[in-house]
Amino acid sequence: MSEQPPVPVFFLSDSTGISAETMGNALLLQFPDLHFERRLFPFIVTVEEARKVVAILDAAAAGPVTPLVFSTTAVTEVRQELHKSVCPLIDFFDLHLERVEGILGHKGVRLAARLHGMGDVRRYNARMAAVEYAIEHDDGQSLRALDKADVILIGPSRCGKTPTTMYLALQHGVFVANYPLVEEDFDDAELPRPVRALRERCFGLTTTPARLSQVRQERRPGSSYASLERCTYELRRAEALYRGHRIPTLDSSAKSVEEMSTVILQTFKQRS
Amino acid sequence: MSEQPPVPVFFLSDSTGISAETMGNALLLQFPDLHFERRLFPFIVTVEEARKVVAILDAAAAGPVTPLVFSTTAVTEVRQELHKSVCPLIDFFDLHLERVEGILGHKGVRLAARLHGMGDVRRYNARMAAVEYAIEHDDGQSLRALDKADVILIGPSRCGKTPTTMYLALQHGVFVANYPLVEEDFDDAELPRPVRALRERCFGLTTTPARLSQVRQERRPGSSYASLERCTYELRRAEALYRGHRIPTLDSSAKSVEEMSTVILQTFKQRS
Repeated sequence: MSEQPPVPVFFLSDSTGISAETMGNALLLQFPDLHFERRLFPFIVTVEEARKVVAILDAAAAGPVTPLVFSTTAVTEVRQELHKSVCPLIDFFDLHLERVEGILGHKGVRLAARLHGMGDVRRYNARMAAVEYAIEHDDGQSLRALDKADVILIGPSRCGKTPTTMYLALQHGVFVANYPLVEEDFDDAELPRPVRALRERCFGLTTTPARLSQVRQERRPGSSYASLERCTYELRRAEALYRGHRIPTLDSSAKSVEEMSTVILQTFKQRS
Repeated sequence: MSEQPPVPVFFLSDSTGISAETMGNALLLQFPDLHFERRLFPFIVTVEEARKVVAILDAAAAGPVTPLVFSTTAVTEVRQELHKSVCPLIDFFDLHLERVEGILGHKGVRLAARLHGMGDVRRYNARMAAVEYAIEHDDGQSLRALDKADVILIGPSRCGKTPTTMYLALQHGVFVANYPLVEEDFDDAELPRPVRALRERCFGLTTTPARLSQVRQERRPGSSYASLERCTYELRRAEALYRGHRIPTLDSSAKSVEEMSTVILQTFKQRS
């Protein structure tokens, strides 16, 4: 399989291409044995630009492997131009926009997304504020306004708190603080003082000792901090703490940040 | 328009629901006058779970407005169960997976995405490493390994460097440092010393004086730092610096982080 030439994949969009990439990649995940070579053409907003892209697609179509082309363009003329390519086009808007229009009983504006600016401005600003908050409260750096957090991720150092925090902030506009469990916290059956009154918002991360040790080795090779023994101890104590205070928990070695973020959001939604 | 009841929107997925949400929301953007009430049902992996979701959908269908249901489920039995709902289902996998299979001449595995774990593990790890790097190098905090940055965002304080940095790191696995232009940099026709030799990787952010002043007022109300005069001066000097060193530039007041990230990536791709 690996000797087959890669399949050229093109993502076309009149905006950033995020939707085309997300949906296209979700489909490509179903073909784990194939090799793909991805190229993005964002911001195709004029027929002229579409024509240039078609020339590139058609050149690629002359190669050994038929290219896959994923497209999300709302503007009818641009779309019509792109469809002139000899490549088969998988157009996520084509059929779906008409179906959505039918269900809603409303005509869509059929404008490139960028022309509406940032979509929901309030939601956008909330996301940006959440990123600021996340950075200020990363790794227990600031205890100021910890009670403004919607979620507080706790766990031993290098369990995956930071990327999960950033994902929740950036994609979902959730105010997340993350708070590391350290030496003195492991000796205590109580939660660390700054988060004690905020137990309801805490979410505990854990991982496997082997994985934690590996990640810590990269940072401080040969240290006792990175030793398997130390990692095993910290994780066991952290998990006991989570259990003792009925704090929901996830294993970051088994899940991506996207999956963890989804589970965390669902957990707090069901509670509230 | 605003007196109409909101349209219930459901996102269904056997994984996180990110693809269903991204594509669904891209379509909903075409209806700026309508009001939507969104609900996510992720991780629907069994027929049993699908049945429960169908019950919820059908209950919603009894309401005043027909719900919109966006779905991306790869598992055939789960999909068949979901299609039993009385709600019309917009299934991004349905048609597209078959078309992709046809073009590729390969059968897709039709497994829920989570069963493949994190997709491309190397790419995933790179993204996580990029987030760590971005946090270490946020706001010029650390000059260590600045030359490991793929991109260095420069600009006056509060121009949008941090969220853009995080987005590039988290979504694209790009190593981004961000470096604030401050007082002494504005008096100098040279780039700040730490980034001088790295000019080729610099990207300048700017915004409007009014917007910058507004953002700074939120942080330090009434300060000279937040004054329109000061903001105008800093932006003018920063833009002169970008021009003088032929550093590509974007106005963060006119673009979302997603748009800026896309433009930044395209800029550096075309150069390399």
